[in-house]
Amino acid sequence: MTAYEAQDPNFERRVRDSFNRQGFMAFIGATLERVTPGFCEIKVPYKPALTQQHGFFHGGITGAIADTAAGYAAFSLMPADATILTTEYKINLVAPARGEALVARARVKKAGRTLTVVECDVFGQEGGKEGGKETAVAHLLATMLCLHGKTDNPRASRDTMNS
Amino acid sequence: MTAYEAQDPNFERRVRDSFNRQGFMAFIGATLERVTPGFCEIKVPYKPALTQQHGFFHGGITGAIADTAAGYAAFSLMPADATILTTEYKINLVAPARGEALVARARVKKAGRTLTVVECDVFGQEGGKEGGKETAVAHLLATMLCLHGKTDNPRASRDTMNS
Amino acid sequence: MTAYEAQDPNFERRVRDSFNRQGFMAFIGATLERVTPGFCEIKVPYKPALTQQHGFFHGGITGAIADTAAGYAAFSLMPADATILTTEYKINLVAPARGEALVARARVKKAGRTLTVVECDVFGQEGGKEGGKETAVAHLLATMLCLHGKTDNPRASRDTMNS
Amino acid sequence: MTAYEAQDPNFERRVRDSFNRQGFMAFIGATLERVTPGFCEIKVPYKPALTQQHGFFHGGITGAIADTAAGYAAFSLMPADATILTTEYKINLVAPARGEALVARARVKKAGRTLTVVECDVFGQEGGKEGGKETAVAHLLATMLCLHGKTDNPRASRDTMNS
Repeated sequence: MTAYEAQDPNFERRVRDSFNRQGFMAFIGATLERVTPGFCEIKVPYKPALTQQHGFFHGGITGAIADTAAGYAAFSLMPADATILTTEYKINLVAPARGEALVARARVKKAGRTLTVVECDVFGQEGGKEGGKETAVAHLLATMLCLHGKTDNPRASRDTMNS
Repeated sequence: MTAYEAQDPNFERRVRDSFNRQGFMAFIGATLERVTPGFCEIKVPYKPALTQQHGFFHGGITGAIADTAAGYAAFSLMPADATILTTEYKINLVAPARGEALVARARVKKAGRTLTVVECDVFGQEGGKEGGKETAVAHLLATMLCLHGKTDNPRASRDTMNS
Repeated sequence: MTAYEAQDPNFERRVRDSFNRQGFMAFIGATLERVTPGFCEIKVPYKPALTQQHGFFHGGITGAIADTAAGYAAFSLMPADATILTTEYKINLVAPARGEALVARARVKKAGRTLTVVECDVFGQEGGKEGGKETAVAHLLATMLCLHGKTDNPRASRDTMNS
Repeated sequence: MTAYEAQDPNFERRVRDSFNRQGFMAFIGATLERVTPGFCEIKVPYKPALTQQHGFFHGGITGAIADTAAGYAAFSLMPADATILTTEYKINLVAPARGEALVARARVKKAGRTLTVVECDVFGQEGGKEGGKETAVAHLLATMLCLHGKTDNPRASRDTMNS
């Protein structure tokens, strides 16, 4: 396991600010549990509004928290004056997403100046609490794009994003 | 473009029933616009609850409707006594997901007895109405698994899913 | 289908020169059949040296010509002073790769300054000649990276690649 | 890391027999270094015939040994009367594939009756010998399909493969 160092000492604040601006994460009830350099964990408790036709978590929730955790694992290593876009991801759904909570844990595999490759495992958690039995439900492999000199918070500046 | 024929004449009802049992699709306001043998279209109007940190549709929404449209495009070709699981998908996000609505259109590339490969394009739609200017925002390639002899509606029978 | 225009009028020569420097393409007997702006076709005739354990073309050959065709479809649209790297690709192998030849046809889906998304279909061709019956054996979706200001031919200059 | 147990005590012989029937692995000079339940390592020494236009290993070689290692990691866990097909894989190429050898190491992430998910890391190895400095060049995530009741060696029986 590679240990990474953050370029920006305020990486955690920057990541949490960005997460808090995601209307969709609040809408589904997801929380940012942990962010360290090159790592991020996101959790979402079960509710019927998040299900697919068999009553398990919808694959869209699994994909959304895996992609978001992967993005912030990468973003934690980027410089202060950069923003991030997901270029692409691939996800294998390996078991029905059951449990009182879903937990996504993402780790950077390779950090580059332009592109960062991240993997993320998603688990169904019994009881929905740390220490509850966990079952792997999905594995993701993603490519993140760093846009240098673009703020992640367009409302705080006159910068606009044009990729 | 391959033309497909449905094995089950009631495919549309079966797809719509399944879609309507997805709590998550209702939660985000998605509608099933069209389903024909091997094809499915899903649409979701913009609202702030569906956004990422820059105010565009969250990648999780793009992924969720693309995966769901791909699943039902495949499901339309399956026999009446089968259910479907997404094995995996890969998605490229090629432009910011802006517009009054997102529209996902999925087409089966190869239908097999066990596995079906589907592609899906997602567009941002100006005005949110048919005929509005559309911009491609994502491309998905997915593998769907057919479980024969399992109902898609576990509440309607005593069958249980064990994959 | 989007029509693309090449930035570099000498794109075909540049693509063919690059292809000819690929020792591996010569080794397997692959030929560059066609390149137009945003499109590329590569073909490889059957020989036992290219097989997997069941006697069909090895998935590595399918992947190699699909990735290479996708790369040159993207490269055809890039400026003269750029080189290309495959960032990632995903490939679905949908049928045994049989036939007297394999043919890969790649088309750009979205051309960007930094990243280009390309799809490629691979067919097994009966008789190994144009007009022979073709069966789809694989579908690929790839992301290509354009490195501006780097020559594609390091032997022709003092530039070195450092990605 | 999950520890797996092989269903078939002769798994190593079965894997090596299958590998030895792959004309393509011999053609490129690849060797099966190690196979244990759920794990497989394949190595290929550098030669100019295996290169792309910049003189590094071709992505097709990287993909081929990663896919093959992933397949045999999965195959090691399958019953004696089964064969295997790659359904799909996704690969990120994270650094130029330089070194005197390429080494692919694959590990099963989730073994199922029908589908098995495998990851594989590929390294460029200085000196081409165990203990030489290694640099990660690629990461793969693949889905393998188990065909029960089909022999992996069609020349040894009258079975034919029809997927």
